[in-house]
Amino acid sequence: MKILFASTGEKPEVWLPLLKEALPRDELAVVPSKDVDVALVALPPAGTFEKIGRPRLIQSLWMGVEKLLADPTLPRGVPLARTIDPGMVAAMSEMVLACVLDWHRNLYRYRMHQRAGSWQRIGQRMAGDRTIGLLGLGELGSDAARKLVALGFNVAGWSRRPKNIPGAECFTDLAEMLPKSDVVVCLLPLTRDTQGLLDGKTFAAMKRGGCVINLARGGHLVLKDLLDALDSGALSHAYLDVFEREPLPASDPLWRHPGVTLTPHIAALTEPRTALPRVVANIERVRRGEAPRDLVDFEAGY
Amino acid sequence: MKILFASTGEKPEVWLPLLKEALPRDELAVVPSKDVDVALVALPPAGTFEKIGRPRLIQSLWMGVEKLLADPTLPRGVPLARTIDPGMVAAMSEMVLACVLDWHRNLYRYRMHQRAGSWQRIGQRMAGDRTIGLLGLGELGSDAARKLVALGFNVAGWSRRPKNIPGAECFTDLAEMLPKSDVVVCLLPLTRDTQGLLDGKTFAAMKRGGCVINLARGGHLVLKDLLDALDSGALSHAYLDVFEREPLPASDPLWRHPGVTLTPHIAALTEPRTALPRVVANIERVRRGEAPRDLVDFEAGY
Repeated sequence: MKILFASTGEKPEVWLPLLKEALPRDELAVVPSKDVDVALVALPPAGTFEKIGRPRLIQSLWMGVEKLLADPTLPRGVPLARTIDPGMVAAMSEMVLACVLDWHRNLYRYRMHQRAGSWQRIGQRMAGDRTIGLLGLGELGSDAARKLVALGFNVAGWSRRPKNIPGAECFTDLAEMLPKSDVVVCLLPLTRDTQGLLDGKTFAAMKRGGCVINLARGGHLVLKDLLDALDSGALSHAYLDVFEREPLPASDPLWRHPGVTLTPHIAALTEPRTALPRVVANIERVRRGEAPRDLVDFEAGY
Repeated sequence: MKILFASTGEKPEVWLPLLKEALPRDELAVVPSKDVDVALVALPPAGTFEKIGRPRLIQSLWMGVEKLLADPTLPRGVPLARTIDPGMVAAMSEMVLACVLDWHRNLYRYRMHQRAGSWQRIGQRMAGDRTIGLLGLGELGSDAARKLVALGFNVAGWSRRPKNIPGAECFTDLAEMLPKSDVVVCLLPLTRDTQGLLDGKTFAAMKRGGCVINLARGGHLVLKDLLDALDSGALSHAYLDVFEREPLPASDPLWRHPGVTLTPHIAALTEPRTALPRVVANIERVRRGEAPRDLVDFEAGY
């Protein structure tokens, strides 16, 4: 088969040797053409889809596909799969734990005290005194939930479809889940339904003085509402890894906001070593004439 | 029995109601006298031991007993027990994970970038690319090891006596363990043997550019050697929760060192709710004439 690697978001110098080793019988290409069987994409160069026609599979090397779905040149009716990379899932859970623990143990406050040279102890709370609300209980949310439960946190999760995660309370009604939550972690795909979900109404429904952690997409957050909630004390702190405009311009006052810990969209990157087997398995399914896995539901938007 | 609560380090207004409820038949006292059966201590007021003579048990409400052992008025031959508090153990593991993840995910560097308004991504590494060296594999170290292993980190542990922890490599020879370690976490009791263990020789034996996390006692660390190791790049960062002199004076330049994240000895406090059952169980053992648990080995120093 002919496999096209069309990506400005993933490095060909990393992926091509791995693909060559895993798929020695196949032809690997970086220039799009009509005879491509499978296209591996992550921010593909403009015009890619017009040049390849209708391959048997378009495999996104990333989990988030909102940009692909918004691309009018993406061929409809061609199977589009996302790569559920166990390394990326593990990295996301690390970042969830890092942010939750930073807030839970008041480390963001101790850093302010350090800058002031001030030795002040803040009362200790136990993990069991906190409830972590997870927005999204797919591959990412369920892994994070399991790891938070193992540390003794109460976990309240919200998803569109009912889920069952041992040790966690799962909700399909956001209005039931938010009032229980000290922390809200956003791990949702960005869709019509989830755009702007982290807004003033959401912050007001959470426990007062809590924390918001957005590791999903900038479009989930209404930034003005967040700043208001930090000002009023409705929220004590926010951890933001994603922004409407990336890179966030150096002039943006958000960089200097004392209530925000900001990282440059690094929570979880696709890890070629662990993503490769999933990509190869889907290519082998196509070769055998089987349906690829982890197909995107165009209606749901992920 | 007569139970004395003699502590300037733990709050009587928290402990006394809990003790009264758990031990309704016993006499609770806060004034030392010769007829005390059990003394519960955490930084007891000066003169306490001279006034109580030889009770049947001295129960430290804290795990660290180096100050008690250094007290010349502590009666020798009276059983001295430490409280192994599951809440304190959980809190310590939270702090180990918070610091390890902060270093592993480069969050201490991203905070510097945030202050500079600089969007710079640092390459992602997986937990399996890192080895976390734990000094001490008792109650604290073994719990932290288990939780680090669950996140995919390699764990190398060091203890005086051979240990077996699933998923971790356990050493009794420090010289074998250090060269494997990206991170060294100190969870040791402070004894003659462990004083000054975190010194230039230790830092030089670790993987270059690693990290030291001291959550045990200030006396474990040779501060000058740490500063040299940070200056030379032998170490990339240090997380210090404990200091030779506490509170650390506001004038100490350590507060402003960019290579040090500093917290005011808050990694893990005794949690009365979870410590109480252990304390009460030891009192009941004394009542039944049985040997108390978690006795301090005066020779080993913990």
